[in-house]
Amino acid sequence: MKIICTRQNLVQGVTTAQRGVSAKNPLPILSGILFIAKNNSLELHATDLEMGIQCTIPANVQEEGSIVLPARYLGEIVRRLPDAPIQIDATQGNNAIIRYGQSEITINGYDAQEFPVLPNPQGKGSLSIPEEDLKEILRQVLFATSTDENRPVFTGVLMENNNGCLRLVATDTHRLALREENIGNDIEDISVIIPGKALNELARVIGAPDRNVTISLGDNQVIFSMEDTRLVSRLIEGQFPNYRQVIPRGYKTRLRMRTKELLESVERASLLARVGSQIVRLAIEEEKVIITANTEVGRIHEEVPVFLDGETTAISFNAVYLIDALRAIGSDNIYLDLSGPLSPGILRPVEEDNYLSLVLPVRTS
Amino acid sequence: MKIICTRQNLVQGVTTAQRGVSAKNPLPILSGILFIAKNNSLELHATDLEMGIQCTIPANVQEEGSIVLPARYLGEIVRRLPDAPIQIDATQGNNAIIRYGQSEITINGYDAQEFPVLPNPQGKGSLSIPEEDLKEILRQVLFATSTDENRPVFTGVLMENNNGCLRLVATDTHRLALREENIGNDIEDISVIIPGKALNELARVIGAPDRNVTISLGDNQVIFSMEDTRLVSRLIEGQFPNYRQVIPRGYKTRLRMRTKELLESVERASLLARVGSQIVRLAIEEEKVIITANTEVGRIHEEVPVFLDGETTAISFNAVYLIDALRAIGSDNIYLDLSGPLSPGILRPVEEDNYLSLVLPVRTS
Repeated sequence: MKIICTRQNLVQGVTTAQRGVSAKNPLPILSGILFIAKNNSLELHATDLEMGIQCTIPANVQEEGSIVLPARYLGEIVRRLPDAPIQIDATQGNNAIIRYGQSEITINGYDAQEFPVLPNPQGKGSLSIPEEDLKEILRQVLFATSTDENRPVFTGVLMENNNGCLRLVATDTHRLALREENIGNDIEDISVIIPGKALNELARVIGAPDRNVTISLGDNQVIFSMEDTRLVSRLIEGQFPNYRQVIPRGYKTRLRMRTKELLESVERASLLARVGSQIVRLAIEEEKVIITANTEVGRIHEEVPVFLDGETTAISFNAVYLIDALRAIGSDNIYLDLSGPLSPGILRPVEEDNYLSLVLPVRTS
Repeated sequence: MKIICTRQNLVQGVTTAQRGVSAKNPLPILSGILFIAKNNSLELHATDLEMGIQCTIPANVQEEGSIVLPARYLGEIVRRLPDAPIQIDATQGNNAIIRYGQSEITINGYDAQEFPVLPNPQGKGSLSIPEEDLKEILRQVLFATSTDENRPVFTGVLMENNNGCLRLVATDTHRLALREENIGNDIEDISVIIPGKALNELARVIGAPDRNVTISLGDNQVIFSMEDTRLVSRLIEGQFPNYRQVIPRGYKTRLRMRTKELLESVERASLLARVGSQIVRLAIEEEKVIITANTEVGRIHEEVPVFLDGETTAISFNAVYLIDALRAIGSDNIYLDLSGPLSPGILRPVEEDNYLSLVLPVRTS
C-alpha cells in the first residue's frame, strides 16, 4: 500500500485503533494495527480477540494494499510528526516507510495476511441512540462492574430492551447501578451481557454531539457503529442476577439532600477512613445527617442538612462505594432511601426517574 | 495553640511546607509539619534533617502554641475543605481539631517539643537575585546533576560568585551545564556545592514576579530567603571537578541551527533509539545535519538545515542527553561546536553568551 494523509487524521485514527490493542497480548502481531488502503480511505483495525476496533480516515490512496505496524511505536511517532502531509509507503516487504518533509522513518511490521480477521457480523436487531446520551448512561453504570475475572457475569453490563425502553444494569454484588432510557425504537426485545472493558473503551471514543451510535447484535457479539468507527465485542455468557429482587420496594427513611454536600463530606471522611476499612457512619436525625469516621489517624464529624421523610436511623457504608455512587448520579439533589441498618441504601436523582444505584451497608459490631 | 485562617492560606502554607517532608524518613515525627502560632501568624516548618522549609501565613491567633501534624493527611484534608474560615484548635493533648462550618476533624499529632529545631543560621555573605531569574537559571543547570548518591559531589550544583558574577555548574560526568549571571553585588567571593534535591524544591516554590531571593551562607549551610518562605540546606563537602578543564577552547566545526528543529528530530529518533542504547548519529554536511538511528524496531533518517562554519564531520550522542540539553537551552537558535567524533559537543545559545552545555559523544564501533 502507499497513501498520503494529514498528520491530524493519522493521529486520530491511530489513537482510536490503539484502544483495541491489548498491552499484554501473547501474540506479537496483535500488538499491531492492521492498515488497509482502499477506495481512497485508510482503514485501521486492532483486536485482542475479545474486542475489536475499526476506524476509517480519509487518505489519498496511491496504491492499495495492507500492512500491520506496531501500535505503540507508531502511536508515539505519529503524535510527534510535524504538521505536514505524511506518506506511508508499504510497497516493499513487511515494513513501512513514513515520509514527511525531507525525512523518513522505516518501521518494521508484520504481514497483513497473518492478522486475525475482525469479526464483522451482520446485526440482527439494531437500535440507535445519540452518542452523548449513551456516553452519560455508561458513565452512570460502568463504575458498578466488577474486575474479578473469576466471575465473568459481574464484569459485564446487562443491556435489555423491552418495549422501546433500554435498560443497563451493572453490579459487583456490593453495589448496583441501573439506568433506563426511553428510546422508543420499534425493535425486538434483547437481553445481553456486554463486557465492561469494551464499554469502557466505547465510552472513550463516543460523545460527538448530534451523532448516533447504532447497536446491533450478531451471534454472541455486539457491534457499536459510529460515523467512522466500529467497535465489536463478544458477549458474556451466563445468567445475570435477578436485580429486581435485590431492590427494596419501599423505604422506612427517605432523605432528600444536595448531592455535592454529601459527596464532599464523605470524601473528607474517606481520607481518614481509608486507614481503617473505609467505613463511614451516617446518623440520620430530623434535619441533618451526621457523617462520622473514627480511625487511628483521627476522627471526623460532619453535618449535612436534609429533609427527612420517615424514621431516624443510622447506617454504615464503605466510603468508596458511596463516593462512586454520588459521583455517578449526575443530579444536583438526591433521595437516599433506607430500610434499616442492614438493608441496602438506594440513591435516586430527585429530578429524574430513570436511574438508581444501590449500596449495601457495612455491618458494624 | 488556637488559630483561625482562610482555607487558601492554609492550603498554600501546607503545600509549601510539604516539600520539606521526606516520604521515606525513618523518624515518624519528620513525616509531620510543625505549626507554631505566634504574633498573629502561623509558621509551618518541615525538615528531613538535610533540608528544611519554613513558611509563614497570616492567621488570627487566639492562643499561641505549637503542634506537629502528619503532613500527608493534613495536605489532603485541607485541600478538600470548604472555602470557609478554618479554626485549628490544638489546646488539648497532641491532637488538633480542625473546625469548619458545622463540622470538625480531629487529627492525631505529635508533641512539638520533639520536633528537631530547624537550623536557622545567620548568613555570612549574602546576595540577592530576582526569583524569576533564579528559577530559569536552575532550570538550565539542574538537569545535568547526577542522582547517584555514591558520588555526592555530582548530585550537587556548584555555586560560585566572583566579582559580581554568579556562576552555577552541574555535571554527572556525561554532560555539564554552566550558567553565568552578572548580579553585580559587592559581596565576598563564594564557592559552595548545594544539593540538587534542595535546588529542585527551591525551583518549585520560587518564580513570583518582582520579588527577590536572598541567598546567604552559614556554617556548612545555605539559606534561601523569600517573601514568606525560607529554605535551608546543608552544603555538600568535597571538591567539585575542574570544569574549565573539560570545556574545549576552540572548535573545528560550528553549526548554527534552529533549536526546535534539532530537538524535534532527535525526539523522534529517540523513540526508535531507546530500543537500542539511545544512540543517534549526526552527520554534518555543508548545509544540513543528517540525524539517523537504527534499531531492530526500524530506522530513522532526518535532515535539519544548518549554517556550517568549519569541517564536515560525524558524531554520535546519547539521544536523551541531547534532548535534555536542547530543552534546557531556552534559546530559539543554537551553536553546536564540535572538535571531532571523540570530543564533547558544546551547545550555546546564539542570542546570549551566558550559558553552555556540554555533552560527551558516544564512541561507536
